[in-house]
Amino acid sequence: MSKKNRIRLYTDVNLEQGGIVECNENQTHYLSNVLRLQEGDEVYLFNGKDGEFKTHINKLSKKSIELAVDECFLPFTSSPDLWLLFAPLKKDNTDLVTVKATELGVSRLCPIISEFTNTVNVRRQRLNLLAVEAAEQSRRQDVPQIDEPMDLCKRLAEWPQNRTLFYLDETGGGKTIIQALQNISGPAAFLVGPEGGFSQKELEFLRNCSYTCPITLGKRILRAETAAVAALSCWQALCGDWR
Amino acid sequence: MSKKNRIRLYTDVNLEQGGIVECNENQTHYLSNVLRLQEGDEVYLFNGKDGEFKTHINKLSKKSIELAVDECFLPFTSSPDLWLLFAPLKKDNTDLVTVKATELGVSRLCPIISEFTNTVNVRRQRLNLLAVEAAEQSRRQDVPQIDEPMDLCKRLAEWPQNRTLFYLDETGGGKTIIQALQNISGPAAFLVGPEGGFSQKELEFLRNCSYTCPITLGKRILRAETAAVAALSCWQALCGDWR
Repeated sequence: MSKKNRIRLYTDVNLEQGGIVECNENQTHYLSNVLRLQEGDEVYLFNGKDGEFKTHINKLSKKSIELAVDECFLPFTSSPDLWLLFAPLKKDNTDLVTVKATELGVSRLCPIISEFTNTVNVRRQRLNLLAVEAAEQSRRQDVPQIDEPMDLCKRLAEWPQNRTLFYLDETGGGKTIIQALQNISGPAAFLVGPEGGFSQKELEFLRNCSYTCPITLGKRILRAETAAVAALSCWQALCGDWR
Repeated sequence: MSKKNRIRLYTDVNLEQGGIVECNENQTHYLSNVLRLQEGDEVYLFNGKDGEFKTHINKLSKKSIELAVDECFLPFTSSPDLWLLFAPLKKDNTDLVTVKATELGVSRLCPIISEFTNTVNVRRQRLNLLAVEAAEQSRRQDVPQIDEPMDLCKRLAEWPQNRTLFYLDETGGGKTIIQALQNISGPAAFLVGPEGGFSQKELEFLRNCSYTCPITLGKRILRAETAAVAALSCWQALCGDWR
């Protein structure tokens, strides 16, 4: 197994050299039935705080796998302090946003319910599984937090004032993203509304907050999921860990 | 019908005030069976060169629709001179790249076959339909050209030397995208390899070309389709028409 294609799993237990980690049912199935690993084979674990550890399969039975933790392979590095607030989209696209935002290194995903949001059916457990899988594959060392869906105005009412909230303003009044992100530092969040856009009331509320900044992504109309990926990418390039 | 949600269709015929345009079979089905439009209803047409024209349904039967061209609604603006070279991915992801790249304003999509490309089955006609649909919805005034798949080395052998080719270098040796795109102007192209990356031979070839620039998008491993969307977004923000 080359390091390039190393098998990485997320676990919620503490990791330290000499420790033992029991795989859960999904992990056991994946390692033994999908990858057909054997005793002695290497698996890498991360838990969002202790770093990435090399382990090997210590015991393997049909129903359980025990991993013995060998050594720290990579020290812990956290993803940037970047949130994405998004109106849930048709099922596949909510999945897509979750996976892509995880790859792009967001630390928190906040589904928000706005006036024109089409669907409020957010299967948070499913999104969490998708985020874990994307974190494993993209070699993140942490998994983004996924919030329960929350009403947009409630979310904004308890907003941490030091976090800049960039919102996609489809009315065309926003700054270009390069203008908005130049000379910016500190915690950030992006807000992408539903396909129907924000209501007049929501736009007024957003315009009057001290911590918000309207942005525009050109004249072509982007799908919500495209806008989310585009905005996060620009932030990573200009302010995040792609620099 | 508000201008915000105007119905836009691409046509390959010339457009001028007073002209008559026959809808094709798909368009007729869409306008009459899906949208249930009637004689007199407004439809907007664009053809990639003459601008966007307001028209109305002049004659409508079960099998054909005739549009009468009223007036020019928007003068023509072309998309930026930006190409995307990409290794075809599993079917859904090739579709995704085509749609997203169209939304993001690329002028040409070039499927390329590299050593580690998994699939060479590119249904160009299907991709063209997807691009037309994405152009209609995103309010582009043109549709990207979609090439036949071509061997990477052949493509590079006949490369126009004044077009910078930014390639995603997964070995980590590339410039950050902000370094690469600062102070750049002129025609550009991005090259995103297959999930398996480029071969050693291909990387050497790419490194030795005078018109290439390796770029990196951080330490997380991005799926090919995510990398394509991310790179195109950064270019639009820094060098393209999002400025």
